[in-house]
Amino acid sequence: MSAIRPVFYVSDGTGITAETVGHSLLTQFTGFSFVTDRMSFVDDVDKAHDAAARIRAAGERYQVRPIVVSSCVDSSLGLILEESGALVLDVFKPFIGPLEQELNATRHSKVGQAHGMVDFDTYHRRINAMNFALSHDDGIAVNYDEADVVLVAVSRAGKTPTCIYLAMHYGIRAANYPLTEEDLEQDRLPARLRPYRNKLFGLTIDPERLQQIRQERRPNSRYASAEVCKREVSAAEAMFRMERIPTLSTTHTSIEEISSKVLATLGLQREMY
Amino acid sequence: MSAIRPVFYVSDGTGITAETVGHSLLTQFTGFSFVTDRMSFVDDVDKAHDAAARIRAAGERYQVRPIVVSSCVDSSLGLILEESGALVLDVFKPFIGPLEQELNATRHSKVGQAHGMVDFDTYHRRINAMNFALSHDDGIAVNYDEADVVLVAVSRAGKTPTCIYLAMHYGIRAANYPLTEEDLEQDRLPARLRPYRNKLFGLTIDPERLQQIRQERRPNSRYASAEVCKREVSAAEAMFRMERIPTLSTTHTSIEEISSKVLATLGLQREMY
Repeated sequence: MSAIRPVFYVSDGTGITAETVGHSLLTQFTGFSFVTDRMSFVDDVDKAHDAAARIRAAGERYQVRPIVVSSCVDSSLGLILEESGALVLDVFKPFIGPLEQELNATRHSKVGQAHGMVDFDTYHRRINAMNFALSHDDGIAVNYDEADVVLVAVSRAGKTPTCIYLAMHYGIRAANYPLTEEDLEQDRLPARLRPYRNKLFGLTIDPERLQQIRQERRPNSRYASAEVCKREVSAAEAMFRMERIPTLSTTHTSIEEISSKVLATLGLQREMY
Repeated sequence: MSAIRPVFYVSDGTGITAETVGHSLLTQFTGFSFVTDRMSFVDDVDKAHDAAARIRAAGERYQVRPIVVSSCVDSSLGLILEESGALVLDVFKPFIGPLEQELNATRHSKVGQAHGMVDFDTYHRRINAMNFALSHDDGIAVNYDEADVVLVAVSRAGKTPTCIYLAMHYGIRAANYPLTEEDLEQDRLPARLRPYRNKLFGLTIDPERLQQIRQERRPNSRYASAEVCKREVSAAEAMFRMERIPTLSTTHTSIEEISSKVLATLGLQREMY
């Protein structure tokens, strides 16, 4: 059993970079009880002093040195954070020197460039893709011509969140097709999907897990029965195999990982937002 | 005018951490033409050699040293990437030493912990929050009791993507309330919102920008006219001021930044997914 260790993600912007790196680092150390706190928009000297005071107080409360993961672009703010006595890990500092040398240029420390201001084109691509995902979610009367990806799966296997993630973070036009019982009685790809074979990606899921999810949604329905879940999953997997549709199980896979695999498998290269 | 500089985000997992840090770093250097490429799931020696070969080839094609931002947890893979001749920035390396010393523990290099495997509780919170956002999107017949946040704005000011982002990345139950023309004729908060005052956050937008967005959606409608956009925005802003609802303009603000500000303003502390 280990004591609690306070961790702070501090940034003069949203703090997304600090939290992403910090979270990745902490997951490499197991058996610790980290309590994490985000401090975003710490963008002037006063706010940095306030942040340092809160960090110091946490150290006193837990009687242990806090850890700070900082993505303050303004490095003078990072220095103030060090006054808290915490171990301060500056996410950018180790890389700025090598990059400046390689590019033969000086970085400019304008805050909030990464997750802040956006141009209208970027905004458009993203929002249009999200509208596309939301309006192509049920598979009914949907035209897949404009889709970049069509996720195929039985109901509740993870299609909708993945489509939305692909749209939000990569501007991908992601549609989905829910396999019906009728579809699953055939061993073939449903006729509507056949013209789009190279856009298809199948999701599968452990039948017991599927049952849990469906049970929550429609308790004690036929839809949520062990038998139906098992039969649907096994029929879907057989069809994916037969038709050579690339497939991934969502059972233990995060939305991020499913999305990355879809992009890698279908060879879609998009910059992440 | 500067030459093109190839940049690779390489990871043995999704590559989200590498891309997040790399993007944040590159935005600090202006005037360069970076072409970026993501290589995810580079999780064995063979794939690392393939990646190194592709990186080397890009350097030869563009006649310039490539930049690699690596978040390979397995550091032996990072070493192989160096054979490409690129400048390799290892996102974790500078921090592992200080963390190991501070925690008096050795990190374990299991791949894909950060954005990979998920436990069912986490999955649940996230998916339930997304279902909540999707089913509480139109403001009609919605009960705000269970909401953590209610975003209030005129139509097309950015409510829906922000709600979905808050749900997906923070497990926040975000509902929204679209202000109708009727609401805007009053100077007061609509009656349905009054019991939820401490959950409200107002979004506003530049009327010209709003007009552009609406025009795309319903060309030449009254809804998309300059006059209606101007009047609606100004009435909404007046109401937010009068009722002291915290407000943010979405005009030049990314979904990430709006979401971070909402969390910071309403004092919601949630770990990011």
